[in-house]
Amino acid sequence: MTLSMYDISVPVFVRMLGNLRSLLEKGATHAESHTFDDALLADSRLFVDMLPLARQVHIASDAAKGAAARLAGIEPPSFEDVERSLTELIARVDKTVAFLQTLKPEQFEGSETRPISLKLRSGTLEFVGQSFLLDFALPNFYFHITTTYNILRHNGVEIGKMDYLGRR
Amino acid sequence: MTLSMYDISVPVFVRMLGNLRSLLEKGATHAESHTFDDALLADSRLFVDMLPLARQVHIASDAAKGAAARLAGIEPPSFEDVERSLTELIARVDKTVAFLQTLKPEQFEGSETRPISLKLRSGTLEFVGQSFLLDFALPNFYFHITTTYNILRHNGVEIGKMDYLGRR
Repeated sequence: MTLSMYDISVPVFVRMLGNLRSLLEKGATHAESHTFDDALLADSRLFVDMLPLARQVHIASDAAKGAAARLAGIEPPSFEDVERSLTELIARVDKTVAFLQTLKPEQFEGSETRPISLKLRSGTLEFVGQSFLLDFALPNFYFHITTTYNILRHNGVEIGKMDYLGRR
Repeated sequence: MTLSMYDISVPVFVRMLGNLRSLLEKGATHAESHTFDDALLADSRLFVDMLPLARQVHIASDAAKGAAARLAGIEPPSFEDVERSLTELIARVDKTVAFLQTLKPEQFEGSETRPISLKLRSGTLEFVGQSFLLDFALPNFYFHITTTYNILRHNGVEIGKMDYLGRR
């Protein structure tokens, strides 16, 4: 028995985005019970020149849909980064999961060796599919989910590691 | 072409631990150039009841060696959590990588379906190998590497996403 590129990407993204959704819900509940606007949490950051929570969620969404689409050999859907409140960010997560669920395992066949070019501000990175997923897309995705967690936690939202990992 | 359990665990752990090492080195350089003891960084945390940086590194090390050993069907080596300075933590990372490099792909054959029990403070979790790696061990590992990054960044250490992802 072996694993496919689909096995180690789409179900992982869907599961972790579900956990991200729960974290954002707990943030919204926290803001409500402390009677402040949850957009203040969405605009929080860990350091002056780091990105705020809302951007962490946008990039987690982009990382998941971008990686899955590239590996499936289709164009990633373009979502405008307009969400500001936690409720809007939850809808962005849901929209991302809905896209991922349209993808079929067959579309990922042979994606291990598919050439993938990634245009970043710092230049273009050239990968083959397996290295793109393992060395770039997954670490990047986890980075933005964990940083969202850390921003919420840093602001006193009552979440724990099991919210991030997902209850079983 | 398909992926093995080894492919998506050991090389990923080794690569990301190398990136963690670079992050810790930049932290040590920062402390030195700002003339403070780097143990202050190792003792920093993002919130009063979160774990400090040193513990994040201990747990990232434990997550990698524990997961790899369990999947390989051997007992994980036990490392005492005694490191306090960033230099000591770098040595812990190196020791973890040295252990991972002793493991052979053959040891991971059939580990997708191997039953794995994990004793946590909250109770025992029962997994099969594939779900253990994808749903627990990898997200947990990335969590502690990213949180180490965030603690350094929150304290003004000049690191960026490409240090976390690793230069290519």
